[in-house]
Amino acid sequence: MAKIAGIKCIRTRHDRTWTIVKVETDQPGLYGIGSASDMYHPTAVEQVIEELLAPQLIGREAGQIEDIWQTMYTSGYWRNGATLHTAMSGIDMALWDIKGKQAGMPVYELLGGPARSEIRAYGHANGNTYEQLEEEVERYREQGYSHIRVQLGGYGGGGFVAGGSSIFPPANRFDEDLYVKAIPEMFEKLRVRYGMELKFTHDVHEHLNPAAAVALAKRLDPYHLFFLEDLLQVEHTEWYRQVRNVSTTPQAVGELFVHPQEWLPLVKDRLIDFVRMRVSKAGGITACRKIAAVCEAFGVRTAWQEGGENDPVNQVAAAHLDMAIWNFGVQESNHFNEREREVFPGMAVFEGGCLKLSGKPGLGIDIDEEKALLLAEPALGKTYHRPYKLDRRPDGTLVRP
Amino acid sequence: MAKIAGIKCIRTRHDRTWTIVKVETDQPGLYGIGSASDMYHPTAVEQVIEELLAPQLIGREAGQIEDIWQTMYTSGYWRNGATLHTAMSGIDMALWDIKGKQAGMPVYELLGGPARSEIRAYGHANGNTYEQLEEEVERYREQGYSHIRVQLGGYGGGGFVAGGSSIFPPANRFDEDLYVKAIPEMFEKLRVRYGMELKFTHDVHEHLNPAAAVALAKRLDPYHLFFLEDLLQVEHTEWYRQVRNVSTTPQAVGELFVHPQEWLPLVKDRLIDFVRMRVSKAGGITACRKIAAVCEAFGVRTAWQEGGENDPVNQVAAAHLDMAIWNFGVQESNHFNEREREVFPGMAVFEGGCLKLSGKPGLGIDIDEEKALLLAEPALGKTYHRPYKLDRRPDGTLVRP
Amino acid sequence: MAKIAGIKCIRTRHDRTWTIVKVETDQPGLYGIGSASDMYHPTAVEQVIEELLAPQLIGREAGQIEDIWQTMYTSGYWRNGATLHTAMSGIDMALWDIKGKQAGMPVYELLGGPARSEIRAYGHANGNTYEQLEEEVERYREQGYSHIRVQLGGYGGGGFVAGGSSIFPPANRFDEDLYVKAIPEMFEKLRVRYGMELKFTHDVHEHLNPAAAVALAKRLDPYHLFFLEDLLQVEHTEWYRQVRNVSTTPQAVGELFVHPQEWLPLVKDRLIDFVRMRVSKAGGITACRKIAAVCEAFGVRTAWQEGGENDPVNQVAAAHLDMAIWNFGVQESNHFNEREREVFPGMAVFEGGCLKLSGKPGLGIDIDEEKALLLAEPALGKTYHRPYKLDRRPDGTLVRP
Amino acid sequence: MAKIAGIKCIRTRHDRTWTIVKVETDQPGLYGIGSASDMYHPTAVEQVIEELLAPQLIGREAGQIEDIWQTMYTSGYWRNGATLHTAMSGIDMALWDIKGKQAGMPVYELLGGPARSEIRAYGHANGNTYEQLEEEVERYREQGYSHIRVQLGGYGGGGFVAGGSSIFPPANRFDEDLYVKAIPEMFEKLRVRYGMELKFTHDVHEHLNPAAAVALAKRLDPYHLFFLEDLLQVEHTEWYRQVRNVSTTPQAVGELFVHPQEWLPLVKDRLIDFVRMRVSKAGGITACRKIAAVCEAFGVRTAWQEGGENDPVNQVAAAHLDMAIWNFGVQESNHFNEREREVFPGMAVFEGGCLKLSGKPGLGIDIDEEKALLLAEPALGKTYHRPYKLDRRPDGTLVRP
Repeated sequence: MAKIAGIKCIRTRHDRTWTIVKVETDQPGLYGIGSASDMYHPTAVEQVIEELLAPQLIGREAGQIEDIWQTMYTSGYWRNGATLHTAMSGIDMALWDIKGKQAGMPVYELLGGPARSEIRAYGHANGNTYEQLEEEVERYREQGYSHIRVQLGGYGGGGFVAGGSSIFPPANRFDEDLYVKAIPEMFEKLRVRYGMELKFTHDVHEHLNPAAAVALAKRLDPYHLFFLEDLLQVEHTEWYRQVRNVSTTPQAVGELFVHPQEWLPLVKDRLIDFVRMRVSKAGGITACRKIAAVCEAFGVRTAWQEGGENDPVNQVAAAHLDMAIWNFGVQESNHFNEREREVFPGMAVFEGGCLKLSGKPGLGIDIDEEKALLLAEPALGKTYHRPYKLDRRPDGTLVRP
Repeated sequence: MAKIAGIKCIRTRHDRTWTIVKVETDQPGLYGIGSASDMYHPTAVEQVIEELLAPQLIGREAGQIEDIWQTMYTSGYWRNGATLHTAMSGIDMALWDIKGKQAGMPVYELLGGPARSEIRAYGHANGNTYEQLEEEVERYREQGYSHIRVQLGGYGGGGFVAGGSSIFPPANRFDEDLYVKAIPEMFEKLRVRYGMELKFTHDVHEHLNPAAAVALAKRLDPYHLFFLEDLLQVEHTEWYRQVRNVSTTPQAVGELFVHPQEWLPLVKDRLIDFVRMRVSKAGGITACRKIAAVCEAFGVRTAWQEGGENDPVNQVAAAHLDMAIWNFGVQESNHFNEREREVFPGMAVFEGGCLKLSGKPGLGIDIDEEKALLLAEPALGKTYHRPYKLDRRPDGTLVRP
Repeated sequence: MAKIAGIKCIRTRHDRTWTIVKVETDQPGLYGIGSASDMYHPTAVEQVIEELLAPQLIGREAGQIEDIWQTMYTSGYWRNGATLHTAMSGIDMALWDIKGKQAGMPVYELLGGPARSEIRAYGHANGNTYEQLEEEVERYREQGYSHIRVQLGGYGGGGFVAGGSSIFPPANRFDEDLYVKAIPEMFEKLRVRYGMELKFTHDVHEHLNPAAAVALAKRLDPYHLFFLEDLLQVEHTEWYRQVRNVSTTPQAVGELFVHPQEWLPLVKDRLIDFVRMRVSKAGGITACRKIAAVCEAFGVRTAWQEGGENDPVNQVAAAHLDMAIWNFGVQESNHFNEREREVFPGMAVFEGGCLKLSGKPGLGIDIDEEKALLLAEPALGKTYHRPYKLDRRPDGTLVRP
Repeated sequence: MAKIAGIKCIRTRHDRTWTIVKVETDQPGLYGIGSASDMYHPTAVEQVIEELLAPQLIGREAGQIEDIWQTMYTSGYWRNGATLHTAMSGIDMALWDIKGKQAGMPVYELLGGPARSEIRAYGHANGNTYEQLEEEVERYREQGYSHIRVQLGGYGGGGFVAGGSSIFPPANRFDEDLYVKAIPEMFEKLRVRYGMELKFTHDVHEHLNPAAAVALAKRLDPYHLFFLEDLLQVEHTEWYRQVRNVSTTPQAVGELFVHPQEWLPLVKDRLIDFVRMRVSKAGGITACRKIAAVCEAFGVRTAWQEGGENDPVNQVAAAHLDMAIWNFGVQESNHFNEREREVFPGMAVFEGGCLKLSGKPGLGIDIDEEKALLLAEPALGKTYHRPYKLDRRPDGTLVRP
């Protein structure tokens, strides 16, 4: 037994957009960490933890994870929003870390033990031209990756056009029809080059109107993707019914999902093939293991989101789920620089296209607070501001997202 | 034309849980105000405004409300959460306030002009016993109210039982079966006493499991409520299909709704009769007038949420929508003390059970910043902490909410 | 405040088929204009305005647009018909014109401000042969149009055959199977010539039986149209479900829509991609901004109808909606001769394939009544008669429409 | 064979709101008449006939009824609106009248001959109090009526309240909840008094919001109505699904229906029990015999609308359909004064609660043009103006209709 004695946020990374939650207990040396990073308004998440959640959790038994999760979930009355869920995910991960340490076991053992021997991850290959892209694909292939996400010049690449005058702030201009033409051509070349040796995914990043989204899905059918990611916006996921009418391209979606009304209808009606929530946005390990259970019942697999802005703690949390969930599909990868890695002893590492956990009790990852502070030094005292970078259509209309 | 020159948050009320957004322009004396109050984590909302939204809006044309709304909506990538929507609602209201002042018209004139001559509001009658309740009903009736919400001892009243031991923090114990029996009995007495002279509503406040919710709705059929409020939790609104199979009790829901996936399926399938979003949680006037248009197409009416924790600016924003929307149903009322009223010159007032706007251009309400500061003085320098007060079932299980 | 003091109809154009409604107020110099043109029975519309609507509106506050709209809508008991809706649309536009002038703002500012910097329009390219068509496409391209509607010899072009004897009045003979073959061939040539540089639409003008309509939609999939227009008749729009089962060609429909039962089921079930009502048939700005809000919720875009018979006032009303609606798709274009343009100072103009508003308060367009009279001079005293020109199938069966 | 030689409108009744269409042929003495009456804007209907329809029909074979119907239907491009359909209904009836005269047979013989020996009609009993109502019921009962419509003080009777101040023109104030209580109480008394001896209907006249409509239907279940009429507005007929979920009260609807999208979904999904279009609004005999055929396939019966404002020609057209259609339910009755009857030799008469046709060839009714002119004399030279009389809710919101 261990009571929660303190909850604090450690802001790190060069711009302080990583928020690591540290839950301390009344047992000497027993604490857990979790990820509550949000790159767009990190201070708001920190405030939810400090103003709303921490005061009511201090003094409670750290092992009552389920009840604490439900308490946090309803403690701001409005729920299922990204700010609250990010905050509670960080605490939830930390509580699982504590429980694992108490048990002397990695968290995936508490979740039922390993269901596979390795966690296949997919790399992000990207090129402004097809030739550059192929070079990146080769690099991943040589490292042993079997799954690779392929993009032409980032999100929306292949669809950008020269912009005209505007009454709005400057933004890239995106033409969805050019994009719908460019992406199948990219896959045509990749399949000619690689046959079915490699498993490819592509991320639409919700740039399309529904009609174009449906058309793209169908046009990609011949290239047999591992999955097509984020084809539709969270507001318009009912359009997956129309995608299913005409296309066999497997669908993966969910990095923006926070609310059960977003994923549950899609899963129960089998309109998608992979759920892709970010563990730290979906509500932590407690939420994701239940989501995975629902998906298993309907034949849907997991592909928890990772990527550039995530911190190493969230990656580890995803990896514990990946080990234990039977209906795991693939894990998105994420890479960190030398200074970042030093802050997180015990972080997971990539070997041969697979993600490996440290095997230590709990999450198996720690934070070196001194180094975390040093890493964040350039940003100290500065106000962070980085809204999501928006594109606009040629006529100036805002593109979501 | 007027450019946004500054956006600031004014925190007021005795506990500083009211957050009034003030958007200033480059035109001397031209500014607007809006409501971004959240009583559970007010500082987080403030942070979203200051860290994410304000920096990208300063310098933009204040009149570009639609584009600014879409920009705010997608600027944190994750969207449709209460923290972001509260922040953007405050700014949206302020922009409509500015536009109304520029036009020299109340905002409801911009929305199409008055569709009714008065805004009927409903009062909150509450009693620990039926007798106390009837006294409160009498009080509202004498004031001219035609619509009254009736509760027995607050939310869940009629269902509370003596609690036993617990491993969790103290909480009221709620037995849903007692409640399902008590509420129809309360209405039996009220209808015997008042016939159909008064229109009654009741707020379940999502306390029930779906099975009990369906049963309660059916048991209330003979008493012909104006509406039954928040019968089901946001996660379980699909159960309204089953309610519709067996009951004619009109259903109102939505004070927790933030996400279109929450209200759109209910409205399009005509599973509810009233939407009840809080204007400052739904995305402001821009969002709510669109929601109202969707509801009109499907025969659903509006009953925007108000109540104890809301500030006078949100009430005024709701009232402008109430005047202009053809499919308005009723307005929840909210009352303020003398010192609070002095902070907001031009606020709406209640007369004969109706809410009256000041008739001045824009929203017609202003904030006296000096008095706002004085009102908040007791809370200055203090950290606010007030999580939602949770009930538990007799066995200790947490009730949502 | 301004009371309606008079409502009159100004009939103009060489054949007097343009009906401009002028609503005068009791404020000196304050009036508004709107479009109530119907080329098939203009006098009937005029009669509805004079006999049914005007008498009950004179003396009312001009700013009560929503209530007046609802009053007009139900004032003839039978509603949702083209004659009534055309009449009320003209009055509705005039009331928005008045409100804009009172506010000192263009109407689109009242609707929420600009959501884009320019209004992309599509031109009508037409040729009896592919070669002629390509010449017209070139002409639009050189003018800067990005979107072009392509037809072979008008509506049904590519499907006409030599006619035989008949017991009915003379009519063109239309063979839908020839048409279903000809149109994809036309697009094959266009895509070889232009790649994806241009966005093409095509107007079926409801000439097909449902089976042929479904087949055509599927055959057009490879050519990725911007949209296929009016594939199905208003009586048979449920067949869009079958279209969706097999085709990804985006669907636009609605120029014949007047009744909510026509568009609402299509939008709520996401069976179409663009709504194309004519603003003056759908019920004016009040109706269309609500329709647009419903469409936004379901991921459907707008493409308000324009074209040869419409007057410049309807075009301007559409353009104000185009500026303000986030889910705008494209605007059909319409062009006027020199004498027609002189009648309407402040009318919108085309520049580089975009439609530009005058920027003046209200709708920003006026009517020169003296010139309007001169323009209509040739038709004065004549009875107008121009029914819709009908085609027949090779066996003489009437084609709808 | 007979060619159409002329089409004219005869406006009669004391206020000239009856429009009788007379189609003359090139055969001496051979002509037909039909009803195109519209009390709200009669001149508009007249204009559609004279400006749009007549010019293209003169010279055509009068016997080509189906082709002429399709021609008229599409000749104004926009179709399915009340003005056009009223105009074409008048011509359609006249063509059937001619064909019957040519055949030397009543029209119902051409429709397949009699399927019943008498046409049961229902009378309109109305009282400001229950006692007055019972007196009227008695009167009909004594006349032999088996079916009686019962109303308390007209449409909305039982729900009217004292009105307050208003910013709108004066109107009755209607409280739907009082109405929902009053009508079942009326039926309780009627059933106590008459048992099941009489068949009762009631006309809601679309006064209710959907929620109250559903509740009323359910509350009427114990009284076993013959049918409940116009429970829902034409815009909200999808709510009949919810009515069907909870109530067994038979539903009749349709006097406002003009468009196939209004009735077809209700019939095919068996959501109603009786269609109630007015023959002269639905498109005449040609349209109604097809509608009846569709209804027969789905187990739905007919109850063509009649009533105070209709003319004797429309009544006769309905009666011919009533005789020939197997799935006839009941016929609404209509009564005329002595002077009105003299204008229409051969009109149908009521005997013992049944409607009897003259038995003459064609429709069997004629018009005495001289007497028609005399009847209309008081209205000559006057401008007609009678909009539908609207009610408002207690807060001033307009009630549809």
